[in-house]
Amino acid sequence: MDDNKNKECTVQFEPRGLKVTVPSGTTLLEAAHRAGIYISSICGGDGYCGKCKVIINEGQSQSRPSPLLTPEEIRENIVLACQTKVLSDLKVTVPKSHSLETSQVLMDANAHILSKLAGQTQVELFEYDPLVRKLCVEMSPPTVLDHTADHERLYAAIRKHVDAPKMQTGFRVLQKLSDVLREANYKAAVTIGQRGGTTEVIQVEPGRRCKTNYAVAVDLGTTTIVAHLIDLTTAKTIDTEATYNSQMNFGEDYIRRIIYAEQTDAFDQLQERLVHDVNDLITTMAVRQRIDLQDITGVICAGNTAMIHFLLNLDPTRIRREPYVASAGFVPPIRAAEVGIQINKRGLLYSLPSVAAYIGGDIVAGVLTTRVYTKEKLSIFVDIGTNGEIVLGNKDWLICASSSAGPAFEGSGIKCGMRAGAGAIESLTIVNGGKIKFKTIGNSHPIGICGSGLLDTLSELFVNGIIDRTGRLKATGDPRLTDGDEGMQFQLVEPQNGHQEITITQADIDNLIRSKAGVFAAIRILMNSTQTNLEDIDAIYIAGGFGNFLNVHRAVTIGMLPDVPRGKLQFVGNTSIAGAKTSLCSQKALETAERIAESMTYLDLMGNPDYMDEFIKAKFLPHTDLSLFPSAGNLKPQA
Amino acid sequence: MDDNKNKECTVQFEPRGLKVTVPSGTTLLEAAHRAGIYISSICGGDGYCGKCKVIINEGQSQSRPSPLLTPEEIRENIVLACQTKVLSDLKVTVPKSHSLETSQVLMDANAHILSKLAGQTQVELFEYDPLVRKLCVEMSPPTVLDHTADHERLYAAIRKHVDAPKMQTGFRVLQKLSDVLREANYKAAVTIGQRGGTTEVIQVEPGRRCKTNYAVAVDLGTTTIVAHLIDLTTAKTIDTEATYNSQMNFGEDYIRRIIYAEQTDAFDQLQERLVHDVNDLITTMAVRQRIDLQDITGVICAGNTAMIHFLLNLDPTRIRREPYVASAGFVPPIRAAEVGIQINKRGLLYSLPSVAAYIGGDIVAGVLTTRVYTKEKLSIFVDIGTNGEIVLGNKDWLICASSSAGPAFEGSGIKCGMRAGAGAIESLTIVNGGKIKFKTIGNSHPIGICGSGLLDTLSELFVNGIIDRTGRLKATGDPRLTDGDEGMQFQLVEPQNGHQEITITQADIDNLIRSKAGVFAAIRILMNSTQTNLEDIDAIYIAGGFGNFLNVHRAVTIGMLPDVPRGKLQFVGNTSIAGAKTSLCSQKALETAERIAESMTYLDLMGNPDYMDEFIKAKFLPHTDLSLFPSAGNLKPQA
Repeated sequence: MDDNKNKECTVQFEPRGLKVTVPSGTTLLEAAHRAGIYISSICGGDGYCGKCKVIINEGQSQSRPSPLLTPEEIRENIVLACQTKVLSDLKVTVPKSHSLETSQVLMDANAHILSKLAGQTQVELFEYDPLVRKLCVEMSPPTVLDHTADHERLYAAIRKHVDAPKMQTGFRVLQKLSDVLREANYKAAVTIGQRGGTTEVIQVEPGRRCKTNYAVAVDLGTTTIVAHLIDLTTAKTIDTEATYNSQMNFGEDYIRRIIYAEQTDAFDQLQERLVHDVNDLITTMAVRQRIDLQDITGVICAGNTAMIHFLLNLDPTRIRREPYVASAGFVPPIRAAEVGIQINKRGLLYSLPSVAAYIGGDIVAGVLTTRVYTKEKLSIFVDIGTNGEIVLGNKDWLICASSSAGPAFEGSGIKCGMRAGAGAIESLTIVNGGKIKFKTIGNSHPIGICGSGLLDTLSELFVNGIIDRTGRLKATGDPRLTDGDEGMQFQLVEPQNGHQEITITQADIDNLIRSKAGVFAAIRILMNSTQTNLEDIDAIYIAGGFGNFLNVHRAVTIGMLPDVPRGKLQFVGNTSIAGAKTSLCSQKALETAERIAESMTYLDLMGNPDYMDEFIKAKFLPHTDLSLFPSAGNLKPQA
Repeated sequence: MDDNKNKECTVQFEPRGLKVTVPSGTTLLEAAHRAGIYISSICGGDGYCGKCKVIINEGQSQSRPSPLLTPEEIRENIVLACQTKVLSDLKVTVPKSHSLETSQVLMDANAHILSKLAGQTQVELFEYDPLVRKLCVEMSPPTVLDHTADHERLYAAIRKHVDAPKMQTGFRVLQKLSDVLREANYKAAVTIGQRGGTTEVIQVEPGRRCKTNYAVAVDLGTTTIVAHLIDLTTAKTIDTEATYNSQMNFGEDYIRRIIYAEQTDAFDQLQERLVHDVNDLITTMAVRQRIDLQDITGVICAGNTAMIHFLLNLDPTRIRREPYVASAGFVPPIRAAEVGIQINKRGLLYSLPSVAAYIGGDIVAGVLTTRVYTKEKLSIFVDIGTNGEIVLGNKDWLICASSSAGPAFEGSGIKCGMRAGAGAIESLTIVNGGKIKFKTIGNSHPIGICGSGLLDTLSELFVNGIIDRTGRLKATGDPRLTDGDEGMQFQLVEPQNGHQEITITQADIDNLIRSKAGVFAAIRILMNSTQTNLEDIDAIYIAGGFGNFLNVHRAVTIGMLPDVPRGKLQFVGNTSIAGAKTSLCSQKALETAERIAESMTYLDLMGNPDYMDEFIKAKFLPHTDLSLFPSAGNLKPQA
């Protein structure tokens, strides 16, 4: 063994063929991480989630025994990557449904189409006045009779274009100003950025550079990071790109990542991963659009409070400890370069303000996008991600809460769960005779089920009497119901052409019910605490990473959302990126987001004695109290 | 010769005994510079001012021949330092009256006493609201019911103390905020700084650090740099220090320094010299007062436009070229560390705004200090330095001009001229019988004449009939009148105890008359262009580096200032440092300075066709037109 201690081993990961050299003794999860391969790991490498299974094809390794591996898996050389040390050169296969490949990421490209609320439409509600912009300014050159200094000459010219009572100029810009203005013959392209009430001159270039100015809006999700590239001279989105959050290797939810960072003092490492992801997205789009990174002068991020803390290397540790306090809710714009984001070196990084430790700027973006804050009547905004955040309110008040829904509807913690990507079952129906019809993303062979498919599955199993109101698989004699390694399970897709069967287990169903119950209980608590009746609710907006589309009414069928008329339900897609983009394109929108964040009242569910009651009551399909779901009578008759 | 090429030579400068090692071939001026010895050099090393004479005591050197050296001087091994190359180890003596030793610098300590306008008194006119300040803020720690983020908690606490609608926090401060607040048990010492309408949180420390906050006000003169250390918790000046501007080696006036920097691309070098001087002053005071440099959180500079450009490394080259345009008149506050000033690493550097290329923040400080801008009646403010800047106006309007007076009244370009320091004749009277009485600074043996002494000398020579109205030394047969190396000269002090005689030459007198004529002509142009009569003038304030005191009425006698009743004349000392200090202690004062700078109309004398006329008319004592000087009749009868 000692001989191996300092040995370097090469690990090759299939099917992508990526190689990495690591010291003997490194875990396979760490090796995958270094190779840039993202393997699911809910527990952050502690060996108890069982998500990081890989197959050893060749070479020597050493694994700790794990109850999460079946005897069959052990025979097939399947190991937990986090519990396995590299001892020699290795060839390893990462099963497709467990690896998070960038190419598989759903781009949320249809969010524009799905929802008129997102994208350009919303921008029109606010005056187009972007946070960073480029002006073509022309000055008369100085003469003996007009010897105003260059700096004040520039200010006067800028003020002909924009209302900028308070201005400042970066010191380095000022040092070169006189030369640039003279070279440009006093026709200059001036980039200005908004910094909390002050207009900063970020860059002064020759006039011919007036037409090149870009910015990036980022939805900084715990699981997925989505970026849109915007041409600021036209306010158009010219490219979009997405990637998995590579912090995934350190834990599937952000609480676990905070714990990991604390235990191993890995805050910098987690920050670098996030910045690396953002830079990857930006660079990919810039290269594709043939844009110089120097011409990108602003980035705006919407994300949950923890992600923003990680990005900016703010201390996130109090987020997970009572009384759950963030370092900062409002973060002033800073230079993107300060955190390592590679755009124009004087370009600015904005973040949407968060409300509380568990209500981030992504939710504020959602409220901005759905315009809940402008309406006379009450609306509910629900964002289903790793947590389920709920906002209830109208133009007069807004109250919000975060339920620890868990990532089941993101496909995590579900045996055949996966993210919305090629091969994911995104919709599923049980037709007459019990036959299952489904559709996969990209129409590929099914390899797993994503959020919208899971919601459909739960709803259809229930409506067709395969599970009872507690979610228990009924012993109906259906041959698809078997006793598998993890207890009872129901086969949704038969094994075919070497592809494994797709099943849903009793544990999966319990998981999904816990998630939906958490969301519904949170909604009830918010409604009860504000004495809101069902009839008062004019609209329910549901956002999240379910996939491209969602059978919204099935969210009522399972009792995740209150039983309002179907016309009041709307799937709004990724409102986080939409709100970020709107804020980028309008100072007023960002100011509105700040007012929204300030005005939202956060209700701590963990501190609420009724929450557990409501949660338990909601753990039935659709609920213990059927009077809350009058339309449940319209469902198919139960067996 | 070739053997010497790479030889290192040690040069020892007497009387201070400082040694420096330089490569063979280095000029003595450069060597002195490297040794930290400041030798007068009006021409910036071009060999035509003759001010950098030093004596070679031992060793080999090589000098270019110069008509500025008399045969006697050559015999005595006197050389021009700038025209002399080091060829071996050398011992050199720097004559006392020509070297600028820090210890000799006049501190302007009496300026407070001399003028009620300066210092603390002025501060009282404005609310005490310093640009940087430390607040003791106490917050209630977060609870489950009050989970406001630390950052917003801090803002709310700050806003209980100050009106700060727009706030920002340095990114690095934000990153450490949560830890610091918890360590401090939510009792914190918060340093805030004003940045053009935004209040920046510069530093957050534990509460016990509330009482330690300092700032420095600097008068950044072409010749002398004066600094005051202010305890911001009490608004008291606790120390003062001054030094010669070590850019002096690159030229005595700033135009010459700009030319030098352009020709040798030495902008960085000139910037470093200035910053080095400022750091020297700050460090000297901090060490003396046992203050940690980290506890100095702000520096404010008042200086002419060129000095501010040099300090900040802004491009000064257009200052000297038509149409004479500065890079910036208003410079936003920047981090002092950005230019190399060694205070708290997040401390701010402020500059008083300038009006034009030749009217700097020092003049704006003068107007602020003398309150010319507040008065119903008209006043004139005159600052005599290397240039003579004039402001005329009242609360409704302000007009200003800069005359190229030359540095004669600073003692430069005058055979026995020197700066106000120990041994300088600061006042001089010719008593009955023609005997000369004088007083020196420090009551030492006289070694030269400073500004106030020169003004007295010119006035007394005139009043006592030793010179005529054109300034020509009259052939009266006075034995003190001799034909010297540089033409006719008049002995003021006999040689004694090895000290050389002190004389004033015809060239000196012509120089002084040119200076006073420049100032008076500028005043006339300003008065004429605004149709101001002598009776309209309610006050004339005269500021500058004359010395500790000035016989102000003698400035009328020689025709430098208009002939107003003596009670309307006031010597106000160093108004540049006074105005800087006032601005440091009150945001409103700085805003007032900015309004003053904005409202001042600059009149370009070089572009004014009447200026040369007025100048020629003013080259008589007191003037060609005696009707402008009605009180001239009260002078002693002319011989």
